[in-house]
Amino acid sequence: MESNKYVYLFEEGRADMRDLLGGKGANLAEMTNIGIPVPPGFCITTEVCREFYMRDRNFPPGTREQVLKVLTILEGKAGKKFGDPENPLLVSIRSGAPISMPGMMDTVLNLGLNDKTVEGLARNTGNRRFAYDCYRRLLNMFGDVVLGIDHNKFERILDIQKDKKDLVFDHQLEAEDWEGVVAEYKRLIERETRRPFPQDPTEQLFAAIYAVFNSWNTDRAKIYRRINKIPDQLGTAVNVQAMVFGNMGNDCGTGVAFTRNPSTGFNQLYGEYLINAQGEDVVAGIRTPQPIDTLANEMPEVYRQFVDTCGLLERHYRNMQDIEFTIERGKLYILQTRSGKRTAQAAIRIAVEMVKQGLISKEEAITRIDPSHLNQLLHRRIDSSARLEVVAVGLPASPGAASGQVVFDSDEAEKAAKEDKKVILVRTETTPDDIHGIVAAQGILTSRGGMTSHAAVVARGMGKPCVCGCEVLRIDYENDQFSVGDLVFSKGDLISLDGATGQVIRGMVPMIDPELSEEFRELLRWADHIRTLGVRANADTPEDALKAREFGAEGIGLTRTEHMFMAQDRLPIVQEMILATSLEERQDALDRLLPMQRGDFYGILKAMNNLPVTIRLLDPPLHEFLPNAEELAVEIARLKLTGGGPEEIAGKESLLRKVRALSEFNPMLGHRGCRLGITYPEVYQMQARAIFEACALLVKEGCKIIPEVEIPLVIDVNELSYLKEMVLEVAGQVMAEEGIRFEFTVGTMIEVPRAALLADEIAVQADFFSFGTNDLTQTTLGFSRDDAEGKFMTDYIGKKIIPDNPFVVIDRKGVGKLMRMAVDLGRKIKPDLLIGICGEHGGEPDSIEFCHQIGLNYVSCSPFRVPIARLAAAQAHIKNR
Amino acid sequence: MESNKYVYLFEEGRADMRDLLGGKGANLAEMTNIGIPVPPGFCITTEVCREFYMRDRNFPPGTREQVLKVLTILEGKAGKKFGDPENPLLVSIRSGAPISMPGMMDTVLNLGLNDKTVEGLARNTGNRRFAYDCYRRLLNMFGDVVLGIDHNKFERILDIQKDKKDLVFDHQLEAEDWEGVVAEYKRLIERETRRPFPQDPTEQLFAAIYAVFNSWNTDRAKIYRRINKIPDQLGTAVNVQAMVFGNMGNDCGTGVAFTRNPSTGFNQLYGEYLINAQGEDVVAGIRTPQPIDTLANEMPEVYRQFVDTCGLLERHYRNMQDIEFTIERGKLYILQTRSGKRTAQAAIRIAVEMVKQGLISKEEAITRIDPSHLNQLLHRRIDSSARLEVVAVGLPASPGAASGQVVFDSDEAEKAAKEDKKVILVRTETTPDDIHGIVAAQGILTSRGGMTSHAAVVARGMGKPCVCGCEVLRIDYENDQFSVGDLVFSKGDLISLDGATGQVIRGMVPMIDPELSEEFRELLRWADHIRTLGVRANADTPEDALKAREFGAEGIGLTRTEHMFMAQDRLPIVQEMILATSLEERQDALDRLLPMQRGDFYGILKAMNNLPVTIRLLDPPLHEFLPNAEELAVEIARLKLTGGGPEEIAGKESLLRKVRALSEFNPMLGHRGCRLGITYPEVYQMQARAIFEACALLVKEGCKIIPEVEIPLVIDVNELSYLKEMVLEVAGQVMAEEGIRFEFTVGTMIEVPRAALLADEIAVQADFFSFGTNDLTQTTLGFSRDDAEGKFMTDYIGKKIIPDNPFVVIDRKGVGKLMRMAVDLGRKIKPDLLIGICGEHGGEPDSIEFCHQIGLNYVSCSPFRVPIARLAAAQAHIKNR
Repeated sequence: MESNKYVYLFEEGRADMRDLLGGKGANLAEMTNIGIPVPPGFCITTEVCREFYMRDRNFPPGTREQVLKVLTILEGKAGKKFGDPENPLLVSIRSGAPISMPGMMDTVLNLGLNDKTVEGLARNTGNRRFAYDCYRRLLNMFGDVVLGIDHNKFERILDIQKDKKDLVFDHQLEAEDWEGVVAEYKRLIERETRRPFPQDPTEQLFAAIYAVFNSWNTDRAKIYRRINKIPDQLGTAVNVQAMVFGNMGNDCGTGVAFTRNPSTGFNQLYGEYLINAQGEDVVAGIRTPQPIDTLANEMPEVYRQFVDTCGLLERHYRNMQDIEFTIERGKLYILQTRSGKRTAQAAIRIAVEMVKQGLISKEEAITRIDPSHLNQLLHRRIDSSARLEVVAVGLPASPGAASGQVVFDSDEAEKAAKEDKKVILVRTETTPDDIHGIVAAQGILTSRGGMTSHAAVVARGMGKPCVCGCEVLRIDYENDQFSVGDLVFSKGDLISLDGATGQVIRGMVPMIDPELSEEFRELLRWADHIRTLGVRANADTPEDALKAREFGAEGIGLTRTEHMFMAQDRLPIVQEMILATSLEERQDALDRLLPMQRGDFYGILKAMNNLPVTIRLLDPPLHEFLPNAEELAVEIARLKLTGGGPEEIAGKESLLRKVRALSEFNPMLGHRGCRLGITYPEVYQMQARAIFEACALLVKEGCKIIPEVEIPLVIDVNELSYLKEMVLEVAGQVMAEEGIRFEFTVGTMIEVPRAALLADEIAVQADFFSFGTNDLTQTTLGFSRDDAEGKFMTDYIGKKIIPDNPFVVIDRKGVGKLMRMAVDLGRKIKPDLLIGICGEHGGEPDSIEFCHQIGLNYVSCSPFRVPIARLAAAQAHIKNR
Repeated sequence: MESNKYVYLFEEGRADMRDLLGGKGANLAEMTNIGIPVPPGFCITTEVCREFYMRDRNFPPGTREQVLKVLTILEGKAGKKFGDPENPLLVSIRSGAPISMPGMMDTVLNLGLNDKTVEGLARNTGNRRFAYDCYRRLLNMFGDVVLGIDHNKFERILDIQKDKKDLVFDHQLEAEDWEGVVAEYKRLIERETRRPFPQDPTEQLFAAIYAVFNSWNTDRAKIYRRINKIPDQLGTAVNVQAMVFGNMGNDCGTGVAFTRNPSTGFNQLYGEYLINAQGEDVVAGIRTPQPIDTLANEMPEVYRQFVDTCGLLERHYRNMQDIEFTIERGKLYILQTRSGKRTAQAAIRIAVEMVKQGLISKEEAITRIDPSHLNQLLHRRIDSSARLEVVAVGLPASPGAASGQVVFDSDEAEKAAKEDKKVILVRTETTPDDIHGIVAAQGILTSRGGMTSHAAVVARGMGKPCVCGCEVLRIDYENDQFSVGDLVFSKGDLISLDGATGQVIRGMVPMIDPELSEEFRELLRWADHIRTLGVRANADTPEDALKAREFGAEGIGLTRTEHMFMAQDRLPIVQEMILATSLEERQDALDRLLPMQRGDFYGILKAMNNLPVTIRLLDPPLHEFLPNAEELAVEIARLKLTGGGPEEIAGKESLLRKVRALSEFNPMLGHRGCRLGITYPEVYQMQARAIFEACALLVKEGCKIIPEVEIPLVIDVNELSYLKEMVLEVAGQVMAEEGIRFEFTVGTMIEVPRAALLADEIAVQADFFSFGTNDLTQTTLGFSRDDAEGKFMTDYIGKKIIPDNPFVVIDRKGVGKLMRMAVDLGRKIKPDLLIGICGEHGGEPDSIEFCHQIGLNYVSCSPFRVPIARLAAAQAHIKNR
């Protein structure tokens, strides 16, 4: 009975023979077959591995014969002979499973060296040091992998050798040193195994193959497979490949090159090489490598062949390649090729240009861009080449980067800004009283508060960098200083913030401005044609709305009216409104707010002419607009002790009582959202009137408006019915007063579990749903974002309790289950119900994919993330088709 | 063609002819047929009403003839004739629909009076005033109901008559006054209708019947039916019944009686009557009624007949009856009978005794008791007969009642208690530093904080009355006073609290101690035999556990270990543990807490020998054990300004920093529950060790322990796996150390939506589930209980957004949907999974029914509510069988 074919020359394999040849073997075969000059070799199949274990760790009959047969062919191809002292063939032995298990299994290099062939290698390379270095590596690897001798024992011998000559680095050792090490290694092996190191290369070869198969079932390999759910019965193949060397003389060399520029994406070869050197010499940096194009002068033929090979590889793999090559005696060898890492900017250019070259389809171009990498292109950022002195790291509360002088007071920040100074506002935390300071500053740094603290929310709204909750900061307002450990920063000192990483940096740093290149725009246009999921933006000002439009938003998915309340000229009126002791007083303050809000809505609706704008009625608890109780209490105590005026004290005490009465134990779950509309209908009535008066003005001006009035924090259809009726009534009044008609819709946020659970009932009254996944995540998981991120999220992710921060990547299992339920229940009642998402997840690619899967109509995110969302939506469509 | 039978004499009807005769008619028929002396009468069917509307408000042919025919029979029975000037028959006309619509439709009394018969009535009664009063009532009702004249016009005439004689009350008018009124009423009718009042009684009769049918379709009746979902096509019947009068002489009388004592439940006739009087005379209180048993002397035959009738009615209706009767010329008439209202105590005695009499089954006895009324029997309460000066009303935070002297300081409360003084502790809010004050006080009153504030939680745990969040209180610690408006209470003044209503009362009030009568115990034993749902108690101390056992608890469903941390001797160690800056320091504090916790668990497990005890590991955020940040900040400011020692200031500042670092924006959603166990494993390890060491001791003593270790606030199976492994490890260590083995289980709270949504995954690791519906309600609805109840709950219930306070009655639609989902998912994995509830809903009857419906194994509630839960569980079983 003829035995199976257990051994394949590379030219006998194909890329699709992965299961039999393993991933590495199949790839080497593929390259060989398309004419890439890969060092010759062969592959022993995974079937041998499976039989090996079935036969209690014995090779199946015929293996040995088949190996020896192809080895002869290999010798012919290499023009060298295994064990030939004059021109020895050296080979590497590497495992290669069908599914990659990096670092899990073993490798032996330089196999075929012995006391005789090492001399031949020394002669042929003219480099005795190199030859003995190769030999000692073989001894070490063989000793470790094949013979099971503790690697540290080899290390210790090397250390003694270095100590003797008072040396630190391996490259400082000379030929005779390595000869000494080789002698010691051989002694070690003989001592440990009671046998000398096998001088017979064939014995070496089979021992190494045996060892690789054996390594499939080490404990660490088995654990790795269990964790990564890789079936044990796959087995590994073994690759045997001729070694090539770039350091056999001046007709040799080695290098690394990218087929295109990995920084800019320009279509030009980019890389470097060294003549008469080995790969590790390039890395070690002892000699300075030369740019790849100079190879055209040094070895024109090799260069031409290399250029052709690069082209071939790019065309074959249809991607920019990162290629390792070696030239041995004027002959080019490709050792490895893989997709090259690249900057976001380069990724975009390469993808777009490859489409134009006909190499890839538009869809492929789109799937190749990691949307989360685009963030760096969309905000001002710190030049990645700059050296930074990071003094502290806080929460990355609002992306972007800024430098400026430290100030501790919002009034000072405003004053400095008027003098054209750039400042960073540093506070323990900010309050509505600091709005003018935040407006004036380049960036905000606080020592307290989380991702949804006042500073964070306001800064994100303004697109301004912010680092929050940087608890190592000790702020000393009295002396206008803050310290971090021993470091002290005073007013006027320069610092920089990176809002994307939370880094606080000493001094000024070089910045790069955001850019939206023509290629980027083109890619996004393709994405728009493919995606079915709409993309809107969250915007609270006409400026943001215009920015969003420019970035391709198809509407506004969330306008937060409360941010408008925080403006410096309005806050005092808002406070009057809140502190009013009668309906009349409150109505009076509301009457003064009305024209301001009307102006806000006018601006946004006008900017979004022809596109829908979702306007959410007031959402946050009222006490967010009031001063801090603790600070007030301290001030009262101070006033009393320092003989403050009784009237002033009484006034502050009265204010404190009101602040306390409004303060809440859990503001997140408190008197906010539509609960305000239920208890203070006059506030929502004013807002509805402001919206509809703005609509009336715009209709008269000939604008096409598509307003969507949104009721937040709904938990029951009764809330929506009650408030919707109120909104419709105000609309009717305004239309009658203005003698004009216009369309609008009234819908609701789904941001509390009960709303999702009862979405069918709510859908009866709702024209649209919008998922508020920030709050839905907080309530579904019982996680206060501000508290979780500062206190236990790190442990939760570190101990693998949860896979990701659920405020960044949507929790598909929990929150997602509720969302899916809400979509199904809502659409059961209204099959065409418009459903979107306006939580921060709306700009995160994995979450966008989920939104696509459950059939949302659109995602809405911050203007700066709109391009990311457009791309991610297209990817989701392609992936889930 | 013979016409249908449109008119039924009472003796021709039956109770089950409700659809045809209406509720009232069927009942009168039923009473007549069982031999109750009901004034004779007949009923015109609902079919007539339906035909009436189909014929455009015309009687169907034959109606008139049938009515006149039975009227003759009626005259025979009554021994009077309709329109007979000597001995006139008077009748009442009343509507009666199949489903009661109280107050919705019209009634006319004394029909049959005219200018002639009124004189006959006057003669027969010897009471001219009465006869003309009857006549003017007929004119008024007929004018209003039949002729559609505004009722106010009649009132105005009466007012003028009274003004003329300078009188205030109707009963001050004399015969000639009523004659004058009658004359004016007749003039009014003629003026308004341009016809005189019809003197023909038959004309009166048919006009009144027409009017009653007409009243079925008034606007208010239609709206009532729409709201109460009563079909419009039911129609109403019309009852025509002979009038009887108790004021025709000394052989006449009228009265009201209960068949059993409605206060105590004793089986003795209880009521009163007046000789020669009308029903309204009893109510008006002009003459003092006599006790019912004196009737035995006055009219022995009538009394005997009345006693027999009462017995008959009770046996027939199988319930204690509230009976109105009239004696006309020595003849007893029953005018009305209905189930009598009674106290909780009476309800129990009556139900139990009726079972023993064989009148009702045990199940009926059980369904007749409203479990929510039992609360009053289970706590010390204010004597309902006392007059109270209520000065303020706060939140009813912990039931029970107490009186005592006002104190403002916990140390003083403790001192006073040692002197055997009874005190009420009055604070703006309490903190862990006040525990000894709460222990010492009879009751607690705070001006801030809600149902889950520190004071409320601790007081409920101790079963002590507490009124919270009484915001009208102005507390002035400096002068040891509090004020409510103009009222000022100083230290030592007496006040009383009613923790069940939130009332704050001036002075001492008489109290009634709780009682568990023998009948009550017997009823509960019957309930225990019927119910399938288990009943456990929430208890944190051996005393509570014993109390729970005494009340019939079958185990402890929740032991909150944190309340043990609040004890005065432990709090400093707990604070040391929290403030520790190294693991060693923390371990040191934990080592000192270990024996104390072991003692706690030993006591509870021993008290519950043979019954399961669920012990929840530490749940609340750590900062709950620390001082208040605002008070600390004020104190620091004061120290600085008054020259405090720098060391003291530095110490307080350091404490403040730690308190602030631990403080949270939304503690409810913060670093608590099993999140503490994940980040500080050593705390849970200590608690597990304390539990298992206590177990080991008890096993050695021969106790049968059934410990259930409970992990709170789980949102993912990974939390449970991680912590369960830790608990098992500690158990293994303790068993090895003690050389003993015992069984225990490890389970989880389901109190966050995500846990319910992923209950199938969690069930894999859980031995049991316990629903924490307080927190589950907070997260599912996004309602912070403390904030909601103080700020918007009233508006939400008042505006009918939600039907009930969801923290009292389980929100079946939202929270209930999640619970049902969790039960289904959990039992899909483990069909026998033990599932209970330990939120406060576990003691609320409607919620208990829901728990029964979704198949929970048990409810757990405060010891005082265990009897309520036993009864409610039995009712749920009966109702849902």
